[in-house]
Amino acid sequence: MSYNYGKNLNITLYGQSHAEAVGIVLEGIPAGEPIDMEEVKTFMARRAPGGKLATSRKEPDLPEILSGIVEGVSCGAPISAVIRNTNTRSGDYSNLKVKPRPGHADYTARVKFGDAFDLRGGGQFSARLTAPLCFGGAVALQMLKRRGIEIGAHLLAVHGVKDTPFDPVDPSANLHAAAQNPFPTIDPKAGEDMAAEIEKARMELDSVGGIVECAVTGLPAGLGDALFGGLECRMAPMLWAIPAVKGLEFGAGFGSAELMGSQNNDPYTYDAEGKVKTTTNNHGGVLGGITSGMPLLFRMAFKPTPSIAKPQQTVNLATGRNDTLEVTGRHDPCVALRAVPCVEAAAALALLDVLMDNNGTL
Amino acid sequence: MSYNYGKNLNITLYGQSHAEAVGIVLEGIPAGEPIDMEEVKTFMARRAPGGKLATSRKEPDLPEILSGIVEGVSCGAPISAVIRNTNTRSGDYSNLKVKPRPGHADYTARVKFGDAFDLRGGGQFSARLTAPLCFGGAVALQMLKRRGIEIGAHLLAVHGVKDTPFDPVDPSANLHAAAQNPFPTIDPKAGEDMAAEIEKARMELDSVGGIVECAVTGLPAGLGDALFGGLECRMAPMLWAIPAVKGLEFGAGFGSAELMGSQNNDPYTYDAEGKVKTTTNNHGGVLGGITSGMPLLFRMAFKPTPSIAKPQQTVNLATGRNDTLEVTGRHDPCVALRAVPCVEAAAALALLDVLMDNNGTL
Amino acid sequence: MSYNYGKNLNITLYGQSHAEAVGIVLEGIPAGEPIDMEEVKTFMARRAPGGKLATSRKEPDLPEILSGIVEGVSCGAPISAVIRNTNTRSGDYSNLKVKPRPGHADYTARVKFGDAFDLRGGGQFSARLTAPLCFGGAVALQMLKRRGIEIGAHLLAVHGVKDTPFDPVDPSANLHAAAQNPFPTIDPKAGEDMAAEIEKARMELDSVGGIVECAVTGLPAGLGDALFGGLECRMAPMLWAIPAVKGLEFGAGFGSAELMGSQNNDPYTYDAEGKVKTTTNNHGGVLGGITSGMPLLFRMAFKPTPSIAKPQQTVNLATGRNDTLEVTGRHDPCVALRAVPCVEAAAALALLDVLMDNNGTL
Amino acid sequence: MSYNYGKNLNITLYGQSHAEAVGIVLEGIPAGEPIDMEEVKTFMARRAPGGKLATSRKEPDLPEILSGIVEGVSCGAPISAVIRNTNTRSGDYSNLKVKPRPGHADYTARVKFGDAFDLRGGGQFSARLTAPLCFGGAVALQMLKRRGIEIGAHLLAVHGVKDTPFDPVDPSANLHAAAQNPFPTIDPKAGEDMAAEIEKARMELDSVGGIVECAVTGLPAGLGDALFGGLECRMAPMLWAIPAVKGLEFGAGFGSAELMGSQNNDPYTYDAEGKVKTTTNNHGGVLGGITSGMPLLFRMAFKPTPSIAKPQQTVNLATGRNDTLEVTGRHDPCVALRAVPCVEAAAALALLDVLMDNNGTL
Repeated sequence: MSYNYGKNLNITLYGQSHAEAVGIVLEGIPAGEPIDMEEVKTFMARRAPGGKLATSRKEPDLPEILSGIVEGVSCGAPISAVIRNTNTRSGDYSNLKVKPRPGHADYTARVKFGDAFDLRGGGQFSARLTAPLCFGGAVALQMLKRRGIEIGAHLLAVHGVKDTPFDPVDPSANLHAAAQNPFPTIDPKAGEDMAAEIEKARMELDSVGGIVECAVTGLPAGLGDALFGGLECRMAPMLWAIPAVKGLEFGAGFGSAELMGSQNNDPYTYDAEGKVKTTTNNHGGVLGGITSGMPLLFRMAFKPTPSIAKPQQTVNLATGRNDTLEVTGRHDPCVALRAVPCVEAAAALALLDVLMDNNGTL
Repeated sequence: MSYNYGKNLNITLYGQSHAEAVGIVLEGIPAGEPIDMEEVKTFMARRAPGGKLATSRKEPDLPEILSGIVEGVSCGAPISAVIRNTNTRSGDYSNLKVKPRPGHADYTARVKFGDAFDLRGGGQFSARLTAPLCFGGAVALQMLKRRGIEIGAHLLAVHGVKDTPFDPVDPSANLHAAAQNPFPTIDPKAGEDMAAEIEKARMELDSVGGIVECAVTGLPAGLGDALFGGLECRMAPMLWAIPAVKGLEFGAGFGSAELMGSQNNDPYTYDAEGKVKTTTNNHGGVLGGITSGMPLLFRMAFKPTPSIAKPQQTVNLATGRNDTLEVTGRHDPCVALRAVPCVEAAAALALLDVLMDNNGTL
Repeated sequence: MSYNYGKNLNITLYGQSHAEAVGIVLEGIPAGEPIDMEEVKTFMARRAPGGKLATSRKEPDLPEILSGIVEGVSCGAPISAVIRNTNTRSGDYSNLKVKPRPGHADYTARVKFGDAFDLRGGGQFSARLTAPLCFGGAVALQMLKRRGIEIGAHLLAVHGVKDTPFDPVDPSANLHAAAQNPFPTIDPKAGEDMAAEIEKARMELDSVGGIVECAVTGLPAGLGDALFGGLECRMAPMLWAIPAVKGLEFGAGFGSAELMGSQNNDPYTYDAEGKVKTTTNNHGGVLGGITSGMPLLFRMAFKPTPSIAKPQQTVNLATGRNDTLEVTGRHDPCVALRAVPCVEAAAALALLDVLMDNNGTL
Repeated sequence: MSYNYGKNLNITLYGQSHAEAVGIVLEGIPAGEPIDMEEVKTFMARRAPGGKLATSRKEPDLPEILSGIVEGVSCGAPISAVIRNTNTRSGDYSNLKVKPRPGHADYTARVKFGDAFDLRGGGQFSARLTAPLCFGGAVALQMLKRRGIEIGAHLLAVHGVKDTPFDPVDPSANLHAAAQNPFPTIDPKAGEDMAAEIEKARMELDSVGGIVECAVTGLPAGLGDALFGGLECRMAPMLWAIPAVKGLEFGAGFGSAELMGSQNNDPYTYDAEGKVKTTTNNHGGVLGGITSGMPLLFRMAFKPTPSIAKPQQTVNLATGRNDTLEVTGRHDPCVALRAVPCVEAAAALALLDVLMDNNGTL
């Protein structure tokens, strides 16, 4: 189903940008897991709007727990969390009903849902739905961390400006750099340059795209399966649910198409402790859809924010003629920026689901 | 489930490279659809092994229909098709049990399934499973074509050699070039160069990667949904089930990360017939997870065939020491080549599933 | 998943008896459906506690709509409704942690979830979860009614006291009797006798079981499918999610086991309008898992409320010895009574899901 | 999906009575499970036609394994088994196309699928689909038995003639009586009387209904969940996929509606080994949707075979008038008889699926 993800976990998202609330129901969290709400809030703050580089819409985005957690511990019932929409300005969106924004879901959602579609703020297509996703991700990250699995993402590129990539064989040194730095890059200088690039776009009433790189350490070998059960097949629908994603690659990704087998194949070797490793990591931690025990590595391309203030050509559905649109309202000039924690959250939820697979245990 | 795909269709694949057979059960095909078996065979022949550029393993790969089709017409029961494995040489694979091939699923499958894993020919991880996938795809392609939807793919790149890309706004002129040309490219000269590149790799006991580009015309606007119901989320698990895929991008894809919003946004316009179109197609036919009515465009990166004859470093699981491996047996030096019809088949099945969504009809 | 139901609809329930709230997320309601909230409340009031025959726990049980409905009309996004738990007395349940109530989920839930299980009020096993179910059912009933499909249930039996059953061939005359009468029976006298029986049980600190009969008129022929897609297979998990159900039968049900084929088979005939009907309705409106166009008829057995005030033998998990338990707190002496609207709601949701099947439309 | 069942297992059935074959794909069987094919055949022989009490259609019904088993051991890939239809007489069914059999799926399937429906032998609605189901069940039964879980069913009643029921608290003494006796009852005398009843019906060109009772021993406490995850919700769609089922009840079932809570509640007690048991078993091994550790007990009502040779009233879809039908061909006069092993098979598959749940293991 469209608002529902997972095999062992069952993640249900709901809400629209200008509804009463957005929320999540998280079924399948085992009973007895401590949930540190302070840590949840710290994580969610990384995604929350704020700062001149992001939208000026400010909301506390504090989740209210309706069920599933008793005195800080999961009880085995679904965890339900609701985040109120407190700062909505419905007036901003009135003329978009007839003049769809280029590059946005306005037109396609309208075709699908008809006039009853709640266009305000993009309805259920709003990036606001990533707030409850990040709540779920924050819960999953805590559970994974207790089991030795850590996830970190950073902004690898913005409109051509590049950050230092993760070391594919051992990304641990920089895994949480983005969370610790004021700007979510490994290299602070790259972060400053990106910030300048984003600010420049904003000043030009324009926007810029970017690439997020994510690494996961501590995953055991043997997760996933053949065909539709491949790890990439399991993760892709979760990762692609983040708005504005246009590409996804694992390991060497599109670069592997330019390599020879002898270059791309990662040689196996025994490490000092007698564990099987690869000396390089072009495979990105997954072979035949199954984890190898090496760090999982993937990159996601985010298109520039479609809502820009520059005048754009569009159609006027009321007049049936071509028209011009200047989008007003509050919009991030670079969605990739706030997508960094969203990618971590999505990866955490997808991997927790895969980790909960029954592998022949009965 | 791992061998099972679809919401309205229910596609179940089974088999191993060296089992009695591989096969497919295709539930959800409406009763009354004519299935032209000659057309099915013609399509499947595009994927079948043969020629010096592909593996020398030759099998007729003719599907036997066990159920679901009566006198050339679907009857509403699941369509079951089985393809016998007639040309298996189990002896080839004996030493891979202790020395896993770098870049292949040997090691990861072994970790997952233990000693009982059917390693011969890669077991269920073999590209042989794409034979029944192509049977299903051939059925889906016929159904889509009757409804004005056409799908074509071509080999866009092999180890740096590039074919002419599709025209994003109107790919129809070259849509079936790959099916018609001896080599699956739009530009025959590019095909010759790629063939030479592949043959060179084969002579060097090596292999090469490649990129497949796919376009779909005739799709109505309004297919897909928000979040996990996005068209990309629906398609990705099917596309990524094809072996050796390392990347997937829609429209401008990773390139969009280097653009500004004003460049990436596709302006809306009314065409001569008063239909809403975009003048460019960076979005690749999908916005907010929903089709726009423009051609659907995506690209997939395939890594070089991991099984190469060149000596490679690996581990010896029997001795617990590092070792050297020279893979023997029959292997395509470029998996991307035979992947072209597989991508068409996978896209056809995924899109047929989405087309069968109930959009509020009751 | 355990808290999730449906193929076209996606119904997610959450909450515990003593959590902040119970709620529902209802995905798949087409955009543009008017939802009459007054009608919803009227329906939900039939299930709400009150009266000496029911539990004395009183809660307004008014749902708050968080998303999916804009100005009284569904917008295509999931409908999220939350019902606060305002009248919880956690103290009542303290000693049940060590002395599980016979006939209740206390012990089995404890085994499954361990100490973290939220035992208060039965946790997620509480009949309180039927409040959001009835919200969803009320929405579904409105949609079905607009399409000529009506659902009614009544209390057929309580501890041996019987109501008049529906006319299997045409139940329409009495379909909504239970909703209109002060006691949910067709025959008011039967209702009085049942009320007396329930009151007698309550005075004896005991409880009684009952049978609910449900009929559905206006269903088209052709809904359902073979095997696991049979209408009964689709409905059973929804119906059995209502607490305390011990049996389910369609048409003649268990009675058909005592008949000969010539008695049980319902002869086909053309009615005055040339439509195919059966002259009797032992099949209960479903043959081979597919609706026949005759009224759908089923009955559900509800066990007596397990929570009774009479002293009962149980184990003491703290001492490891047998012990005696007197359950205090507020409990309905006959769960079947308030189950009547729950059965209607569950049937409405299950049938709406089946009605939304894609039957070869593409 | 309609031909697909399971959460951890993924059971796909296909075939029609008069197609080339019927078959099953069984995904999720862990690698390394030995499968004794002789035992499989012995089990399947219990369901196979033969004897004057059953249909005279005789088929060896030997499954061919296409994949998933290597040298008698599961390898982790889906197990695919095909059973050829070798003894089909298509001529028998020609006139049923216009004159639907009362009580059969002929008419309803025709409405659903239209003229393309494969009416021969009932198409996919044929009880022949229980042959591959029994193959799957035979595999599951072996796996369960190795883990101390045993399943047995018997014919509890035929047209009023009753067999001795299982002892609800300890059915182990009679669990496999039906498999060992020439007639599937516990009491051989009851078997003789039932056989006479069935033969009498056959002589009268009629048929009789029956009830099958099933017990499962050795199940651990704690399987299942709340709401739609209840054990009954998980089992019902599998059990109701067996043709001709009209009712299902667990434990005291419909009888519990006539009891008081103090009679129906099963007191807890510690047994000699300090394990929690109940002294009675009205709950049938399941409380709140979760197993209690007591034997699981359920009963299923089967209607009389609808295909009877006696003249019956029906409609003639060609003439648009009422007509008379005398069904010819080979039909069991009591479907409940051969349903006994089918119920065991279905229960085994459903319970294996539930046993493979991940209960918070990660």
